[in-house]
Amino acid sequence: MCDREKDTNVRLSLPAVCVVWQTAMIILFGVFIRYDHESDAHWVEHRKHLNLTDIENDFYFRYPSFQDVHVMIFVGFGFLMTFLKRYSFGGVGFNFLIAAFGIQWALLMQGWFHSLDYTDGKIKIGIENLINADFCVAGCLIAYGALLGKVSPVQLMVLTLFGITLFAVEEFIILSLIHARDAGGSMVIHTFGAYYGLSISWMLYRPNLHQSSRLQGSVYHSDVFAMIGTLFLWMFWPSFNSAICDHGDGQHRAAINTYLCLASTVLTTVAISSLFQKHGKLDMVHIQNSTLAGGVAAGTAAEFMLMPYGCLIVGFCCGVISTLGYIFLTPFMEKRLKIQDTCGIHNLHAMPGVIGGIVGAVTAASASVEVYGHEGLVNTFDFEGKFKDMVPTTQGGHQAAGLCVALCFGIGGGIIVGAILRLPIWGDPADDDCFDDETYWEDVRICNVKSEVSRLDLNGPLPCFLSFSHWTKMFISYNQ
Amino acid sequence: MCDREKDTNVRLSLPAVCVVWQTAMIILFGVFIRYDHESDAHWVEHRKHLNLTDIENDFYFRYPSFQDVHVMIFVGFGFLMTFLKRYSFGGVGFNFLIAAFGIQWALLMQGWFHSLDYTDGKIKIGIENLINADFCVAGCLIAYGALLGKVSPVQLMVLTLFGITLFAVEEFIILSLIHARDAGGSMVIHTFGAYYGLSISWMLYRPNLHQSSRLQGSVYHSDVFAMIGTLFLWMFWPSFNSAICDHGDGQHRAAINTYLCLASTVLTTVAISSLFQKHGKLDMVHIQNSTLAGGVAAGTAAEFMLMPYGCLIVGFCCGVISTLGYIFLTPFMEKRLKIQDTCGIHNLHAMPGVIGGIVGAVTAASASVEVYGHEGLVNTFDFEGKFKDMVPTTQGGHQAAGLCVALCFGIGGGIIVGAILRLPIWGDPADDDCFDDETYWEDVRICNVKSEVSRLDLNGPLPCFLSFSHWTKMFISYNQ
Amino acid sequence: MCDREKDTNVRLSLPAVCVVWQTAMIILFGVFIRYDHESDAHWVEHRKHLNLTDIENDFYFRYPSFQDVHVMIFVGFGFLMTFLKRYSFGGVGFNFLIAAFGIQWALLMQGWFHSLDYTDGKIKIGIENLINADFCVAGCLIAYGALLGKVSPVQLMVLTLFGITLFAVEEFIILSLIHARDAGGSMVIHTFGAYYGLSISWMLYRPNLHQSSRLQGSVYHSDVFAMIGTLFLWMFWPSFNSAICDHGDGQHRAAINTYLCLASTVLTTVAISSLFQKHGKLDMVHIQNSTLAGGVAAGTAAEFMLMPYGCLIVGFCCGVISTLGYIFLTPFMEKRLKIQDTCGIHNLHAMPGVIGGIVGAVTAASASVEVYGHEGLVNTFDFEGKFKDMVPTTQGGHQAAGLCVALCFGIGGGIIVGAILRLPIWGDPADDDCFDDETYWEDVRICNVKSEVSRLDLNGPLPCFLSFSHWTKMFISYNQ
Repeated sequence: MCDREKDTNVRLSLPAVCVVWQTAMIILFGVFIRYDHESDAHWVEHRKHLNLTDIENDFYFRYPSFQDVHVMIFVGFGFLMTFLKRYSFGGVGFNFLIAAFGIQWALLMQGWFHSLDYTDGKIKIGIENLINADFCVAGCLIAYGALLGKVSPVQLMVLTLFGITLFAVEEFIILSLIHARDAGGSMVIHTFGAYYGLSISWMLYRPNLHQSSRLQGSVYHSDVFAMIGTLFLWMFWPSFNSAICDHGDGQHRAAINTYLCLASTVLTTVAISSLFQKHGKLDMVHIQNSTLAGGVAAGTAAEFMLMPYGCLIVGFCCGVISTLGYIFLTPFMEKRLKIQDTCGIHNLHAMPGVIGGIVGAVTAASASVEVYGHEGLVNTFDFEGKFKDMVPTTQGGHQAAGLCVALCFGIGGGIIVGAILRLPIWGDPADDDCFDDETYWEDVRICNVKSEVSRLDLNGPLPCFLSFSHWTKMFISYNQ
Repeated sequence: MCDREKDTNVRLSLPAVCVVWQTAMIILFGVFIRYDHESDAHWVEHRKHLNLTDIENDFYFRYPSFQDVHVMIFVGFGFLMTFLKRYSFGGVGFNFLIAAFGIQWALLMQGWFHSLDYTDGKIKIGIENLINADFCVAGCLIAYGALLGKVSPVQLMVLTLFGITLFAVEEFIILSLIHARDAGGSMVIHTFGAYYGLSISWMLYRPNLHQSSRLQGSVYHSDVFAMIGTLFLWMFWPSFNSAICDHGDGQHRAAINTYLCLASTVLTTVAISSLFQKHGKLDMVHIQNSTLAGGVAAGTAAEFMLMPYGCLIVGFCCGVISTLGYIFLTPFMEKRLKIQDTCGIHNLHAMPGVIGGIVGAVTAASASVEVYGHEGLVNTFDFEGKFKDMVPTTQGGHQAAGLCVALCFGIGGGIIVGAILRLPIWGDPADDDCFDDETYWEDVRICNVKSEVSRLDLNGPLPCFLSFSHWTKMFISYNQ
Repeated sequence: MCDREKDTNVRLSLPAVCVVWQTAMIILFGVFIRYDHESDAHWVEHRKHLNLTDIENDFYFRYPSFQDVHVMIFVGFGFLMTFLKRYSFGGVGFNFLIAAFGIQWALLMQGWFHSLDYTDGKIKIGIENLINADFCVAGCLIAYGALLGKVSPVQLMVLTLFGITLFAVEEFIILSLIHARDAGGSMVIHTFGAYYGLSISWMLYRPNLHQSSRLQGSVYHSDVFAMIGTLFLWMFWPSFNSAICDHGDGQHRAAINTYLCLASTVLTTVAISSLFQKHGKLDMVHIQNSTLAGGVAAGTAAEFMLMPYGCLIVGFCCGVISTLGYIFLTPFMEKRLKIQDTCGIHNLHAMPGVIGGIVGAVTAASASVEVYGHEGLVNTFDFEGKFKDMVPTTQGGHQAAGLCVALCFGIGGGIIVGAILRLPIWGDPADDDCFDDETYWEDVRICNVKSEVSRLDLNGPLPCFLSFSHWTKMFISYNQ
């Protein structure tokens, strides 16, 4: 197959997908989605009946965290993917597109499983549903990280449609059927999302990707842009892991645990990055990514009594493992396993996600009434209703089972969706057009020589001198 | 008139305006402004008297939203205007200046109309006043969008002084006299602000603006900077529309409605942008701006029972209309109507604002006790005091009247202020100096050959040696 | 000493410091740190006992402010230091590293002084401790501002270790022993941090720093990056100053005071910046820094009844003094006092911090029952326990004493730590390697001509044609 002949024209497919799916959303929302009792105008009467004050509306417990999570999804993930020298538009722009579609589809999918009011067959949404929709989208954005620069926006929309669907089923099995706890989604979001993306990347393997290797790196300012993403993810991760925890001590503890885990990760990331480079220089890729691994790993156990020193230990290990992953594993995976992972999500989400799942299982299994208090134990692990007879050790087993389900859904789902995305109808780029914004964006104006000239022009009297020196310079650099 | 002769020296006028007006603010604040009962030290006694807990201080209901709105005003609007290749300083810097002045003047103007304590003649301010001041400033920042790159900072200060004054009067008429509801300010902020700016731009029409057309575009990284503005506006718009809604379900519902509206807008913006370009490529201008139109249009009806599917429909339409506006209307307005609209605020604020006003009127007119509950209806539409006999249908009429008032104030005020700004005393730039930071900023160092030269220059005294040393350096680095 | 021979290899020292200190943190956290009663799983029982609702958990009073402060520390301080053309990685990256280490050490140091539970010898942490840890780190980040570009990451780690230690002792003396109030840390954070950094800079004076003067400036886009830092600091400063104030009116008033102070500062900064430049052009350095001086000065008196007009006056003065400092004082200090202050922290933190301390002393001394109410006075100044007999005038004296302590600790501590940092073992850069990311970062890829060439290369097969076409293009664009 001559890649040169690939057709990246998405002028019909992209508008069609956007308009048709958005119309479908309108119809499905019309049929199914209504406000829940805390966001409905009847709440004034309702709260008097329950003898609540306005401030006890769930909105005030969760809205600040929601906005932080929202920033992580759109600015955090978006800007983290601007690091390539010529794919910043695609990184932040397509992230924006698929997240905006994904949250709508997630409200429906998660609603059917978790928020369906059986009295009238409607899904009732409130602030917690918005947070969960953002979480659900995060799985797909993680998957995008492995495919960054190699797929078309239409492929990304398809990836999101199936990703959200798989996520909702997987989440229902893990949280509701298996009764695993996963407040920050180490298993449900990160493990699933990362293996979903890696499997798709394996299915879409491009043996000739080196043809666009000239664009597969960063420049100075694109690295600084990526730091915006890194820092907003890093700073708001405590909100991510605490956003849907229990009111009160649950949210409080989850924020503290995540904060500590992340702090510890930064130091070991710097240590390993420096240790493996000549002269101990730091690598921006590690600082941008591995520093976040602690937040991923703190997800499942965030609301447990992980203890402050426990958090630091988890963060310590994640920083080491994730950075080593970038140094040794990513090249190995590309060469031997034929998995091309643009952003290194295996190091940032997959491995730390699995670690998080294991930490969650161990912490749950070792929970005791002494540490949690009786009510605290029931409250934290939700040993109520049909699960009222569960004990910590069995909970630990259920956590481990949850991790396996996440892995299976990620890998299995990724292979199936990858097969679909291989169809030659989605407008994906040729091997030498990858990582290039010109493929899908109009009028990409790189800071160029022409503008340079028009400026110099003002200061110097001799145009030919200017051009000549410039010419010489370019000739030399060509010969390098 | 030979534009070349325009004097852009603002060394007297800018410091004079800043110092004199700031001094006036100090005097007026001294005479008029005090803390309200929730921010005064007497509150400790006060709350015991009312049997409230600390958490029921209005601060905790509104502060998270306030900070989000604050980010929208300074980072959102500021960075959205950095998209021009050589006017990023002016975009974010002058935005900063006029917003900082505007919030002070707004506290006074809005205070006289809304927060005056008649017992002592003082304006009592709390967190809600700060939010309203930010809202008030938003109107002027929107107007700045039409004028970006074509006016001096002194003109912007004048625009803000009059803009805030007009805003406060218009707002008082619409909200208090007419009793229209406008939580997110589709009419009061966006329609007014946009037509105010467009009218001024019409009055300041520059027939020879093409002389600086070389600078009237973006470069790669300035577009990425603008995406910071876009995303912070997009993410925090739910806070904007819910910030001053009723405690409890009002704020909760407004946030959900805006979130859904915005999600839907992104998809139709992408669809239309792709449909009208060769090969279906996306245009960054549309992604940066039209994706926000849904937030504007959700403003008036944000706290009404617009229903989730209703929000998606509003967003759908706004994405389509706003993007089509950028493609067809902006060039038409510039050519035929002599309105030069740098940021396309007609597409982002004016049209969606009017749509928002209409949606608000229709939603209000069709409100029913069935949907809202009796108390909910009274609460949502504030049918109390002298308006206790109003019904939804009359409310709908009042909403429509409010929209007309906003339009009249915007267009009328803009023409008058535009006439004032045409006086040749404000230091505005010549036609071929527009969109250029060098006009008002010291020492603008573009990443270029010149800076390279000025660097090398330090090492050698001779210009030819300069080129030679550069050549040598490169030759050496080649041979390394 | 021949600077050329300096060894900037940190391949052993940096990993060693990171790993050993992080391990020490784990051990110390294991021995000392536990959850406090509001973040412990026992809280469910605890709150029922106290008859509290979940929303009265301190988490909900402070978490939104905490996240804002967190953004200031990592994005605000980090990006403010990206302004140098070639030291953006170092600015934002090393800021990240030392803040992540500092918050852990601060939790311990501050914990021993303020949160030690004497019943079991453990430090009990909650959300307020996290905020205080961020505050504590701010002092060290301010100090980094004076040293930006001239020190190695290992030196920064040492600076942070000692800085946090000194901070905790100084804070204990000022707040607990002297009983000064300092909600926003004008004295404790800014005065201390700035003089600590300036003293270190004086000890590390580099007479030949001009050798890297080519890099000691900004480029266009690095200035825009720095504006991200400026704006996030400016916007969230009200959260900084109110974060640990009393619940209710205290936090409310502190936010309002800071907001007003900052607004006023912007106008006078612009005025002075314009007044002292040819043609009244603005200087980005002033806009980036001096606009923040009002927030620093509002720190101590933030929760006092400073009155809105009082805030505007403080802001007015700070804008003037800070900008004049950049114009006159910074060059003077470098030449005469041998203090090289890269970011001008003397103008942004030191002088405004001292002003803030004085404003706090005056405001406290002039407090009256009439203005505060009896309970309000006791509540605001914490005239309880062994300080129950204090009156405002004595409180004013104590405030002034606090300021002196902060100055002494800053200058004295800085001289001692500076002496330690002069040891030739820390891998600091040579004089002509300062302000250059290539010293400590791998693979720094400046946007350059070479990448342009590699692109053009694709269009033409012949190297000389390539250069020729480029030459032609440049010639044509010149003639346009």
